[in-house]
Order: sequence, then C-alpha cells, then structure tokens
Amino acid sequence: MKVSRSFSSSCSYSSITPEIAEHIRQTVGEESVITGHEKLEAYGRDATDLIRLPELVVEPQGADQIQALLRLANEYRFPVTPRGLGTGLTGGSVPVCGGVLLSMARMNRILSVDPRNMIAVVEPGVVTADLKKVARAKGLFYPPDPASLDTCSIGGNAATNAGGPACVKYGTTRNYVLGLEAVLPNGERIMAGVQTRKGVVGYDLAHLIVGSEGTLGVITKLILKLIPHPPAVSTLISFFPDLPSTMEAVTAILTGGHIPSAMEFMDRHCLELVGDLLTFESFERSGAFLLLEADGLPVMIQQEIEQMGEICLTHGALDVFLAPDSHRRNKMWEVRKEVSLRIEHHSPLYVPEDVVVPIGRIAEFVNGLPLFEKRYTMKIYAFGHAGDGNIHLNITATDRNAGPRIEQGISALLREVLSLGGTISGEHGIGFAKKRFLPLELSAESIFLQKKIKNIFDPLHILNPAKIFD
Amino acid sequence: MKVSRSFSSSCSYSSITPEIAEHIRQTVGEESVITGHEKLEAYGRDATDLIRLPELVVEPQGADQIQALLRLANEYRFPVTPRGLGTGLTGGSVPVCGGVLLSMARMNRILSVDPRNMIAVVEPGVVTADLKKVARAKGLFYPPDPASLDTCSIGGNAATNAGGPACVKYGTTRNYVLGLEAVLPNGERIMAGVQTRKGVVGYDLAHLIVGSEGTLGVITKLILKLIPHPPAVSTLISFFPDLPSTMEAVTAILTGGHIPSAMEFMDRHCLELVGDLLTFESFERSGAFLLLEADGLPVMIQQEIEQMGEICLTHGALDVFLAPDSHRRNKMWEVRKEVSLRIEHHSPLYVPEDVVVPIGRIAEFVNGLPLFEKRYTMKIYAFGHAGDGNIHLNITATDRNAGPRIEQGISALLREVLSLGGTISGEHGIGFAKKRFLPLELSAESIFLQKKIKNIFDPLHILNPAKIFD
Repeated sequence: MKVSRSFSSSCSYSSITPEIAEHIRQTVGEESVITGHEKLEAYGRDATDLIRLPELVVEPQGADQIQALLRLANEYRFPVTPRGLGTGLTGGSVPVCGGVLLSMARMNRILSVDPRNMIAVVEPGVVTADLKKVARAKGLFYPPDPASLDTCSIGGNAATNAGGPACVKYGTTRNYVLGLEAVLPNGERIMAGVQTRKGVVGYDLAHLIVGSEGTLGVITKLILKLIPHPPAVSTLISFFPDLPSTMEAVTAILTGGHIPSAMEFMDRHCLELVGDLLTFESFERSGAFLLLEADGLPVMIQQEIEQMGEICLTHGALDVFLAPDSHRRNKMWEVRKEVSLRIEHHSPLYVPEDVVVPIGRIAEFVNGLPLFEKRYTMKIYAFGHAGDGNIHLNITATDRNAGPRIEQGISALLREVLSLGGTISGEHGIGFAKKRFLPLELSAESIFLQKKIKNIFDPLHILNPAKIFD
Repeated sequence: MKVSRSFSSSCSYSSITPEIAEHIRQTVGEESVITGHEKLEAYGRDATDLIRLPELVVEPQGADQIQALLRLANEYRFPVTPRGLGTGLTGGSVPVCGGVLLSMARMNRILSVDPRNMIAVVEPGVVTADLKKVARAKGLFYPPDPASLDTCSIGGNAATNAGGPACVKYGTTRNYVLGLEAVLPNGERIMAGVQTRKGVVGYDLAHLIVGSEGTLGVITKLILKLIPHPPAVSTLISFFPDLPSTMEAVTAILTGGHIPSAMEFMDRHCLELVGDLLTFESFERSGAFLLLEADGLPVMIQQEIEQMGEICLTHGALDVFLAPDSHRRNKMWEVRKEVSLRIEHHSPLYVPEDVVVPIGRIAEFVNGLPLFEKRYTMKIYAFGHAGDGNIHLNITATDRNAGPRIEQGISALLREVLSLGGTISGEHGIGFAKKRFLPLELSAESIFLQKKIKNIFDPLHILNPAKIFD
C-alpha cells in the first residue's frame, strides 16, 4: 500500500530513556531485548507500507516476562505494541507511537495436539500452517486458512479474527478459539473461555479479546478446537460470461443444500492479469471465474462436486473443469493466489480493502465498480469469497500521486458497501489504516462503549495505542 | 428443581409505588402493562422451582417502549428483568429483586427470512421451532436445537447462548448471531455486529451481549445466519455393554473423519428408566446407549451412517439399529427426550446440572459418578452430548429434605469437573441458581473485569440484577 499516511498525533508517551531501557533489560533479561537501528527495522512494519521503528524490541519466551514488561510500561507510561509475525494489512502491529515492540515470534511452541479431545494448545507465535500440518498428521483439522498462512502467526490470527476461503463452510478463527490465556495491560494474567467444546460461564471475555487487535491484552496461549480432518477434497473451476450469472450459480449451490469448503471468485480484471496461467479456451470469452471445493469422504465429495458443476452449467457457465489430482488442484489455487501478487507488482499505487456485502448483492456491487473506477480514475480488481460476500477490492492507480483522490474513492466505495447492508472489513480489521473509516460504520454510542471497555482493560492506554480508535 | 434457595440479599431498589406504576403506564401505554397477582404469577418463574412475583409486568411491542421503560428505571431506580418465554434452567429470568418483569413474548415477529442472503431477521420473542420451520420452508436451516425448542424464544437462546444436540456439528446459538439490536440499560439503542456473514470492525459487542443472560442489554432484534438445509437425515441407535466402549466408539467416529449431526448418549440409570420404550433384545445387557445422526445429501449420509454403525460394532456395540424412516427416527428421539421427563417425575428432589468435560474424559467422569452417589446418597442420571463432552447430570434424591446434602454433592461434582479440565455449564448458564459456584471456575481477576463491564453498561444495576454475580 503506497498511500502516504500521517501518524496519529494523539501519542503522548514517555520515550524509552536509557534508564527505562536498562530497567527493561534487567526485568525481562538481556537476551530478550533487541536494539540497534538495523535490527529494529524488521519490526517496524507489517504488510502495509506503514513504517515506524520501535525504540526497543522485547522478544520474550514466556508470559512472566510480558507481565513484568507491562507493569513497567504502566510505571513509566511507555507504549507496548504486540506483534505476531507482521503479516497484517492495516498497520495493527506497527508501533505508531514508538515505545516497545513486543514480538511474539519466539513463543512459538505447539504445546499439545490431543486427538482424543480434539484440542490444540499453542503459543501465539506458532505459524498457522505449522499447526495445520501437525494437526493433520494426527487426523485433525484446524480449518482457518488466511492467505498468509505460511507466514502468519496463530496469535495474530486470533487478534484479528482472521478468515480465509474455508470460512464459508468452517467459520473464522474466533469459532476455533475455545479459550485463551492473556496478559492484561495491567500485567495480570487471566484464563478466559474453556478447554472444552462448550461453555457459558460468565461474560465471553475470550471472544472479546479475540478480534480486539491486541488492544485489550496480549494473548500468551490459545486453546483451539480441532475437528476431524476431511479425508479428501475435490476442486472445480468454472468460467462464466459475467458476474451476475456466477452469483446466480453461487446462490443455487448454497440453497441447493451444498456447503462447499471454498467458493472463490475473480472478476474480469483479475482474469486478464493471470491469463497466461489459464490455458482454457473458454477463458477468452469469460467475465468471471469461480473456484469451488468440496471436502469430506471421497465417495461423497465426488458426487457433490459433480452436482455443483452441473449447477454452474445450468446457470450459464461456459466451461467447468475438475481437478482430478492434487497437482491440478494446486494449479487451480495458484491462479487465485497469483492474482494478489500480480496486482501489487503491477500498480505503483495499491490499497487492499476487504469489504463484505450480503451474498445476494455481490453481483450488483461488483457490477457498479466501473462507475467508481471512472469517477476516481482508478482500477479495481475484485476477487474473494463468494459464499461469504467477502470481496477483496484491490484499488490501484497508475500515478503515484493519486493518494488523495484514491482516499476519496475508497471512502465513496465504503459508503456504498454500508448502504447495501455490508461492513467495511471482513478479515483485515481496522488497525491504524482504517481507523478514520470506523465512524462510517459504527454509531457514536457503540464507539463510546468500546472506548469505555478499552479504559477498563487499559486505563493508561499503554497497550497498542492509537489502534481501532483514538 | 426442588432445592430451596434464599433470594439475594443484595437487592436494594425502589419498589414500584402507585406513582411509579402510573408513570410506567403513561410511558409504555396501558395495553402493555400487566398487573394483578393472578396474572403476574405466570411471569415469576422459569423452568426451575425459583419463584418471585414481579411487581408489574411490561409486555411491549417495540423497542421504543423498552427504551422509555429503562429510562424510567434509571430515574426511579427500580429493577427490570427481561424474560423470553421462561424456559430457562437457572432462574436467569426470575425477577429475584422484584420490580418490573419485561416480557418479550409479544415481540415475536419473523421480520424476514431471505434465501438469497441466507439471513433471518427476527424479534426476540419468536419461538425457536417457528423460525426453524419458516426457514426450512425456504430450503434453509437454523441449526441450534435446545431441548425446549418448541416453547423457548430465540431471544432467550441468544441471551444464554443455548446449545443442543446439533452443536457437535453446527455450533451454538452464538455461531448463528451475526448481529443484533439491543436497548442498553441507559435506554440507548445500538446495533452491534453485522448483517453479513463476516465482519471484524471494532470490539465484538454483539457476541459479548450474547450469553450475558440479559444483564448487559435487552435484545430487540436478531440478525441470524442460516445455512442450506440438509436434504436428508439418517439416524442410528446403538447399545453398548458399558460407557468406556461407547466413548471409544465416539472417539473413533470423530477421528475417522465423520462429523455426525448428533451424538447423544445415555447411561445405565437412564436406560432403566425408559426400558419399556426399548423393545430391543440387546437392551437387557446394555450399559449405555448412543444415538447418532448424519445429515446431508441422501446418497452420502446413507454411507456415512452405515460406516458409523460399523465403527460402533468394531468397538463392542451389542447391536446397531438404523431408522429407515422418519417415524422410526422420531421413536428413537422419543427415548432420548422421554428420559428427562421421567427423571423429573420420578424423583421428589431433582437438580439438573449441565457440566462439560473434555471428550476423552467423559467415560472416566461418568464411571466415577457412583462414588458421588454413595457418598451423598443421591442418584445421578447422566445423558447428553457425547461429541461435545456436555453431560446433563440429573441429580436426584428420594428424600425431600436432602437439599443441603445434595448441595454438597453438587459442589463436589463441579470441583471434580473442573479438575478434569471441564466447565460447570455448557448450555444452561449461571443465572441465579449457579451464582454461588461461579468462583469455583473463574478467577477473582476475571470476575472483577466482568463486573467492571457490567458497570459500564449498567452503572445503577437496574437490568436483571443479582444474576451471574452480585
């Protein structure tokens, strides 16, 4: 993302003086402290273009160090910004007020994967794909699959309630967090939620901390629900003449009793960008692409994917291709994954938005995008999760100085999304980058309540300040 | 439940004087106010034996009346207890501090069931089964299925995050609440959550209000996620010699890649109680009963249920019976449903608990129950949701004066549950009846935080006081 942004002016904290730095060193141990401009640089950014170097990095190996650090932060009033592995898309882990960057990268142990109880206990720094692999080896499935799963952390996923293509069938990260351990901003450590598959004892603090983007507590342990691993998966891609016919097929599949494990679409702009990967004849005449998956027992999904293919054809699909093996399946996903990379490399200015509209209004919304493109001289690549209504709008411009114009365009797009009954973010969250759009969606009363909750947890605002709201 | 309980002494509110009653009448309208001892009686209880008559009942038809009522409540400082349809099992809707009972029974419109967007918008007084029927007629499925679904309200389900047999595959009520409208204790009305299938904008207030048992706000509208209705369902019952072999089969089914839509078990005590309904020869030799269901496309579930049946036999099942039609299916469920009624009618003293233990420890826990039965001279009927670890412990005694002994027994049982990594309630919640057990499970720090959240929402504690905690 190359839109320039000014950092919040609401930061007024103590800087990390040599005295404070020394106190931190003594408290958390020399080996957990990282300093020096070169080393700090890697910790000052996420997957956006936002950069702010922390004054000091603490990379602890246990919750007790985090407790001690947060007690110091309250004493000296310096900000602490927790960070998983820095793959966020809203600057949520960028230390915009300076201070200490708390890297969870070394707390990366998978403590247990228990097949009898179908539960995993993990530290927050575990890479999502690693948990998926270890679970799979025991016949278990951890479904959440954010696009960055090979490089993102499970703690970051929980902090942002990350989603992914599998959400349409399996739900988001929050649905798999049974309980958690967190260090509160005051340095206290609490357990929230349960270690079982159900629990209704008191207010749901665990799921309040999930999705709070590291502003209410530092997650130090997660108790995750696993489910039986589907023994097989079958994949299909289909080309449609246009987006409305694609969405008719999506609705027909869902209301026909099918629950695919992925329903990914791409618009014409995206197709053009990855045309070289698409060796299918029908691609030339296509206005939209749909990738469908079914998972489950082999005999079952074979029938299911064929039936979904037939529904596509009934609703105007030009062609339907089944992936007969994992090699072809990977090829099909490559197309979907490659498109994000190419959009970013293709455009001098690029802003990823991830709006959600009601499923039945995806076609209407995406068909209206050319009006915005024209009005704000930008190009919008739309792809995403058709079964959720979650559309990744990749907004690009060819002139580097288009920042202010693009900002207006994004604001207009988000208003359109809200007028359709949608939400401005389905997966990425608010972080720092989207903070100014929050009042478009939430009422003053709702924001007021949320700020009061923040105040309870963090009266001195030392934990991840200037995120979500000021 | 016939254990005598004293009401909280922490109630110190204004009583509803004639002047206040008149002000309420003028504010919410004469036709929404119910008075008179006889009429009030129906509103003073839930499905426990707890009874406390409200001083006045308000049964509004819209959120504006609720807003006005709550503003008056703050002005005069009288308590307001929201109530769905009174099927709760913990006294959560019993007006233990007197004051106004706010009945949601007339706000019972299904505002929309939208097949394209797979969303329902309902008022809180809708009977759960009614929503399920209306959705089904449009090819859609609202999965939560608490045992009381024919008589309970969807608003009550949301307030308690109700579960049911389908949870093992589909999750609890919280998983189906996308967004909600609520009147806060101060009379403000807010929208929380989204109308779409995903959303990560700000703190998750919607899911904090869900499960808060009517203490943080009055839910006035729910936006619910629907999914494609499974076209068919197949049911199987199986008799096992004992509970450990049953649970071995449960684990083998789940780790074998199957996700049944119900996994209900009953212990030997339960089997004895419903023996006349079980005409199967193997019943005589049985120590446990397992009911399994699979739902989905017909060809698929047929195979799935047969495979699950084979797993049961491999793990020692004495017999397996398939339900070839809906008539036989209903018969099978009748056995499971009848057992609750018979336990209650069978015992002069009866307390329903609904603990959860990790799935892998169900057998160990249930096999340990005879020790508690002996020590506290009580009989415990155990049945429940094997795939969730959610066990309904129906604790009974033959002597009516056993109250204090049974209380000790329950306390010991709950401690055992917690020592196994479990939770004291999977579905019923805390309400009033289990309030004294809350500190067994939650730390002082967690309860402290929860009380602070309550204070933010309801500084004068006028909404559903003396519930969950004091």
